[in-house]
Amino acid sequence: MNLLLKSILDECRHYTAQGNVATYIPQLAKVDPNKLGIYVITEGLYDSFAGDCFDRFTMQSVVKTMILLQALMDSGIEKVRGLVGVEATGKPFDTFNYSDQALTGANINPMVNTGAIALCTLIRGDTYEEKFQRLLGLTRLLADDPDLQVDESVYRSEQETGNKNRALAYMLKAYGMIHDPVEEILDCYFRACSILVNCRDLARIGLVFAHHGRDPKTGKRHFAPELARYVNATLATCGMYDGSGEFALEVGFPAKSGVGGGIMGVIPKRMGIGVFAPALDKHGNSKAGVQVLARLSRELDLGIF
Amino acid sequence: MNLLLKSILDECRHYTAQGNVATYIPQLAKVDPNKLGIYVITEGLYDSFAGDCFDRFTMQSVVKTMILLQALMDSGIEKVRGLVGVEATGKPFDTFNYSDQALTGANINPMVNTGAIALCTLIRGDTYEEKFQRLLGLTRLLADDPDLQVDESVYRSEQETGNKNRALAYMLKAYGMIHDPVEEILDCYFRACSILVNCRDLARIGLVFAHHGRDPKTGKRHFAPELARYVNATLATCGMYDGSGEFALEVGFPAKSGVGGGIMGVIPKRMGIGVFAPALDKHGNSKAGVQVLARLSRELDLGIF
Amino acid sequence: MNLLLKSILDECRHYTAQGNVATYIPQLAKVDPNKLGIYVITEGLYDSFAGDCFDRFTMQSVVKTMILLQALMDSGIEKVRGLVGVEATGKPFDTFNYSDQALTGANINPMVNTGAIALCTLIRGDTYEEKFQRLLGLTRLLADDPDLQVDESVYRSEQETGNKNRALAYMLKAYGMIHDPVEEILDCYFRACSILVNCRDLARIGLVFAHHGRDPKTGKRHFAPELARYVNATLATCGMYDGSGEFALEVGFPAKSGVGGGIMGVIPKRMGIGVFAPALDKHGNSKAGVQVLARLSRELDLGIF
Amino acid sequence: MNLLLKSILDECRHYTAQGNVATYIPQLAKVDPNKLGIYVITEGLYDSFAGDCFDRFTMQSVVKTMILLQALMDSGIEKVRGLVGVEATGKPFDTFNYSDQALTGANINPMVNTGAIALCTLIRGDTYEEKFQRLLGLTRLLADDPDLQVDESVYRSEQETGNKNRALAYMLKAYGMIHDPVEEILDCYFRACSILVNCRDLARIGLVFAHHGRDPKTGKRHFAPELARYVNATLATCGMYDGSGEFALEVGFPAKSGVGGGIMGVIPKRMGIGVFAPALDKHGNSKAGVQVLARLSRELDLGIF
Repeated sequence: MNLLLKSILDECRHYTAQGNVATYIPQLAKVDPNKLGIYVITEGLYDSFAGDCFDRFTMQSVVKTMILLQALMDSGIEKVRGLVGVEATGKPFDTFNYSDQALTGANINPMVNTGAIALCTLIRGDTYEEKFQRLLGLTRLLADDPDLQVDESVYRSEQETGNKNRALAYMLKAYGMIHDPVEEILDCYFRACSILVNCRDLARIGLVFAHHGRDPKTGKRHFAPELARYVNATLATCGMYDGSGEFALEVGFPAKSGVGGGIMGVIPKRMGIGVFAPALDKHGNSKAGVQVLARLSRELDLGIF
Repeated sequence: MNLLLKSILDECRHYTAQGNVATYIPQLAKVDPNKLGIYVITEGLYDSFAGDCFDRFTMQSVVKTMILLQALMDSGIEKVRGLVGVEATGKPFDTFNYSDQALTGANINPMVNTGAIALCTLIRGDTYEEKFQRLLGLTRLLADDPDLQVDESVYRSEQETGNKNRALAYMLKAYGMIHDPVEEILDCYFRACSILVNCRDLARIGLVFAHHGRDPKTGKRHFAPELARYVNATLATCGMYDGSGEFALEVGFPAKSGVGGGIMGVIPKRMGIGVFAPALDKHGNSKAGVQVLARLSRELDLGIF
Repeated sequence: MNLLLKSILDECRHYTAQGNVATYIPQLAKVDPNKLGIYVITEGLYDSFAGDCFDRFTMQSVVKTMILLQALMDSGIEKVRGLVGVEATGKPFDTFNYSDQALTGANINPMVNTGAIALCTLIRGDTYEEKFQRLLGLTRLLADDPDLQVDESVYRSEQETGNKNRALAYMLKAYGMIHDPVEEILDCYFRACSILVNCRDLARIGLVFAHHGRDPKTGKRHFAPELARYVNATLATCGMYDGSGEFALEVGFPAKSGVGGGIMGVIPKRMGIGVFAPALDKHGNSKAGVQVLARLSRELDLGIF
Repeated sequence: MNLLLKSILDECRHYTAQGNVATYIPQLAKVDPNKLGIYVITEGLYDSFAGDCFDRFTMQSVVKTMILLQALMDSGIEKVRGLVGVEATGKPFDTFNYSDQALTGANINPMVNTGAIALCTLIRGDTYEEKFQRLLGLTRLLADDPDLQVDESVYRSEQETGNKNRALAYMLKAYGMIHDPVEEILDCYFRACSILVNCRDLARIGLVFAHHGRDPKTGKRHFAPELARYVNATLATCGMYDGSGEFALEVGFPAKSGVGGGIMGVIPKRMGIGVFAPALDKHGNSKAGVQVLARLSRELDLGIF
């Protein structure tokens, strides 16, 4: 399949020139917009890959998947559902646009910033340092990569410029949805967003979600099937910001993007995929990344709908 | 499987008492809230069914699936996408809540009233009578039921009380999204909503969508696979109103509900399902119907995520 | 004072080039954007005027003042307040942007289209023809001009293109705020908007509001002081669309504008003013008209704040 | 006039039982809801007063008037208008409900929290301690009361529970509308809200606004007339939260309320009024206070419309 992947990258490379790298965090603006890579893992013996698939980038919103999973593992489905809803919001990921009446958990979801920040409080741990270490540990475990690290300069950059997230967090606090100190929760969230991964890592994590919590490479079960279904269904309806409907149409499987340029794809019972192309479309999704996944989906009939 | 279906109905029957029949159209308020039926069709020789599966009810919003398909067949994907978007709105199906700036096709979708009304204009036909007959013909064809009729009293009831839909249609016209006479478009839409079907009809139509446009019973292809994927993806993200995220989690396959109490389920490559239970939950979805589908999905592992 | 008025017009004439005439109704687009006139009436013997003050133009939203007054005279303060509120909406005059929960009378006011349309139903009359004739009669009476007529071509133009108002009216009907046939109510509203007046007429009507219902020229009381205060207070907070706050700052007295280019000014206990300049600013207020009033207000210390 | 004031208080005293004291700050919840007082100052030699007019309470939102004035005096009209608009928002004072597109200065105003917080940055001073001291100094000067102090327990209570204001401030920062450290700005704002005044103080400040910046008691001019008109016009359109329209109708002069129960009334060229009654209506305005002012306005014909 390496040949197929290479030819898809070649075909889609021109899309990298049609997007823009994220600039709201100065560190992200420094990335080379021409990067393009993909990594595909199935149950089979050999992985497939092409392009800049071993380049590292920060997870950004892809980590919302891990936050949701960790919260589900630590606090259970009921508590998670009680805190944040599951409906698409029809709004950008960092929206403020809640009427006073409507800021309830039912109107946010784990894939928008507000929901992800709230879910950090449901991760087990006496301190937010401990909570973050659990989250990092789980990410390393699923990625089968014990060396995953935080990009300190991106993390500091997020800390310095993350005023919109501060506003969202204080809003959650004002409405009694979170109770811990805002700066500690945000510190955990900003560090989580700054975890460095490559396409292989994303593909490996995606594979575990695809196999409903069991790593088919090792045979080890990491979490219950119903938690995987929870996450996958959420990705299918809200994983690609307010471009999720379009993605369902054109690609057709659960996926989660981040403004770092990565996308994790989950083809249930079949495959995990990681792509990387940092130039973004208007929704904040990797422009070339979406096109590569669309092309691959048609080629291998990966659509689940 | 009839035994399984029967025992699921028995188990879920108490949910019929937890919802309320639609009352905004007087005719709908007259339905017996205790009705409960299901019909399942696969490629196999024998269908399975239980309960009030041959009772007739009006399609209501389920017909949005047919309107979308007919518009796609008659005008093509590009024109349909140009007129109405594909993102979940995060709002109720009859929402007015568009800021003046944001009333663009990109902010509505085929599964909310505004989008479905707009799509009626993309059905081929010199008159709206002709357009409606095409739509009815397609519904009869896919349902394999040439006798499908409009419930005249529900249709008249919709006509009389449909002021919110009138407001939505005039809004579309004011913004230049539709050009034909509003009352003619609405007449087509109201009649479409009033088509009488039973669970078998919905299961049969669902089966064709599940098999991507080919009827596996007759071997006949009715429409192209990409149109089926378009519809199925839209159902998966927006088919159950602002309960679509919850449905993806708890049931896990594309489906479309109507306030008449029907739900059409589509299990890609496997199965079509029709359920009927007219008592509705707060989103306007059949209360017991959703529970029956959730139970069946777990039992037969029908979830696609 | 004629000399003062003339020199203010000269000074402000260049503003006529900075606005644009209304185009949403084709008939309005035909007006000469360079027109500029003013008429001022006090208790004193002689009126003052300058420029195109005898040119006729349609009242448009200025007639909302008359609709509110007529509804108050015919149905009383309590009924009017029960149907439409008095708060500024912070939204454009033809806004759709009501969340479903919030479309209540309390959230609209007599100076936005929705409110004015609703108030037409509170004018006395067995038919809408009769209601309109009452309204026209009152306008003629206050303007002391028995020859006021409807501009038939503008009226027909409004009828043909008024789909946004149709949408608003059906929305009101869907929420049970109005009960009469929408097209009849709108016919009354469109005709009212199309009444032709000149600056003198507006100044004369303004004078009666300024003297709290009594015409100081004739000594005749036309309505109770509390109704005048109701109208004047409403004009002060909402009379200039979403430019009302700015107008309060820069001009400082109650006024009502219309997209025909007219503004009626009310200086309580002192003066009525009519200005006409059809090129509009972004809020839909006469660009040069506002500047002329601001200049005059500073010159004669007309501000009430 | 003392007799008149006393009889109005007696007549309106039962309204104190119809409102509720503010509870969002624990310290405010401790106030006696039965308190009721009024103080009226004209150019004349003797002041008039009745009831609990020398009881002290925190200014809360009344101080927004002082913040606006100080910002105008220190930075000028142009800078103030450039930072925050002047239109009524149609929303509660602590609204979050800005769509991402619409959070611009033009959509907030000095009488909602967001606007008042932003304006603190336009007060002159090297530190926020210095800015606050200027503001306190101006308040003491206009109130002619050099002993005005901050209520330290209310201030600390605001600090601890002011998460909504924190959210609003970080939102302003995220959109580049403010640049200083949020906690320092808020500290200034919270202390300003906690300044203790009585009815006499409010009446005295109101008198200076009524006389357009000149204190008629001392003959001293404190600020330019155009700044007074700016503030008075803003109070007339937005001073009573989303009850401003109703207040214009029923009372009819510029005023500013605070959730501490105080209202400052400004009758241009005539009078300053302070009332105090801590039980609030649904808008957050003093329930009995508004009634007292309405009664007094009718009795003395104070309405300016």
